[in-house]
Amino acid sequence: MAKKVFPPAIVFNPAPAIMVSSQGKDGRANIITVSWAGVLCSDPPMIGISIRPNRYSHGIVKEAMEFALNFPSASLIEAVDYCGSVSGKDVDKFAGAGLTPVPASKIKAPIIKECPINVECRVKQIISLGSHDLFIGEVVAYHLDEEIIVKTNKADAEKAEPVAYCPGTLEYRKLGSVIGTYGFTKGKAK
Amino acid sequence: MAKKVFPPAIVFNPAPAIMVSSQGKDGRANIITVSWAGVLCSDPPMIGISIRPNRYSHGIVKEAMEFALNFPSASLIEAVDYCGSVSGKDVDKFAGAGLTPVPASKIKAPIIKECPINVECRVKQIISLGSHDLFIGEVVAYHLDEEIIVKTNKADAEKAEPVAYCPGTLEYRKLGSVIGTYGFTKGKAK
Repeated sequence: MAKKVFPPAIVFNPAPAIMVSSQGKDGRANIITVSWAGVLCSDPPMIGISIRPNRYSHGIVKEAMEFALNFPSASLIEAVDYCGSVSGKDVDKFAGAGLTPVPASKIKAPIIKECPINVECRVKQIISLGSHDLFIGEVVAYHLDEEIIVKTNKADAEKAEPVAYCPGTLEYRKLGSVIGTYGFTKGKAK
Repeated sequence: MAKKVFPPAIVFNPAPAIMVSSQGKDGRANIITVSWAGVLCSDPPMIGISIRPNRYSHGIVKEAMEFALNFPSASLIEAVDYCGSVSGKDVDKFAGAGLTPVPASKIKAPIIKECPINVECRVKQIISLGSHDLFIGEVVAYHLDEEIIVKTNKADAEKAEPVAYCPGTLEYRKLGSVIGTYGFTKGKAK
């Protein structure tokens, strides 16, 4: 199996596809779809999202120092793509995507009703890296649709139908079958 | 669809499952599987990984200021789980997992031959967040197995078979079917 080497670029599979909701001081809510995002820390629970400084959501999140992650199900894929392709400067994305803002519990920005998983975050740090600024958010609460809850407070990935993003080929994909559970090799002879 | 609110915890779907290879000053190579990882910046291309300070790889990466991301295919799931469950303090994980170290192009740490996607990174910044330290890595080169290359320099997710991780339910999952391509809603009436 021969390998070919290439100059620097982003290669990463899978990235997530997350709708980030925020609210400006003027009370106007916005949504941006991000895939440059990941878990940063377990305790305290922290999640990072990266946004280009010229995006409308960048200014809002920087000013409010809060945002919500809304994990869409596969059925919302048109809204996911729409919120990543148009600017909130020009349109009301909640209306344009047919999504419903509902109040969060700890932050002012609304969460998206149609997304089965919503995570409220407060920004602890902003790091400028180049094309993108990294917003380090601490989780302050999360919401699950009752229908997707398993093990008291976990999301069932089968029912939540999260969306994966493959940056190289620009594909949104569903998750597929379970191939193991963390720790399943423990105790096996090696 | 009623929602239930919960106190802070990590909820994130999908996270990746990546085998990070590194090499200590003593020439000993190690592997750690991480899921707390994500793209941070497009230009320059930067990827973040978070590692607990008590993990063996933490000291190695901090000292070498380099690491490689090795994206496994689903067939390597036992090795993925093994490298996330045991410590390199006690065992040679390349040998234990049956993986082959091959030289990288820009960094001293080896990449993993069996993984179809390998990304070499140099650490630009380390940020202590609590249980985990975030290592911000700049991509300096990447490798693709010839068999998975599409569009000159991209990875075919069908052939690369990347592994997704669902932290809540601890499931490793394959990626499923394509449900759209970035930008597919552009120009559609809204």
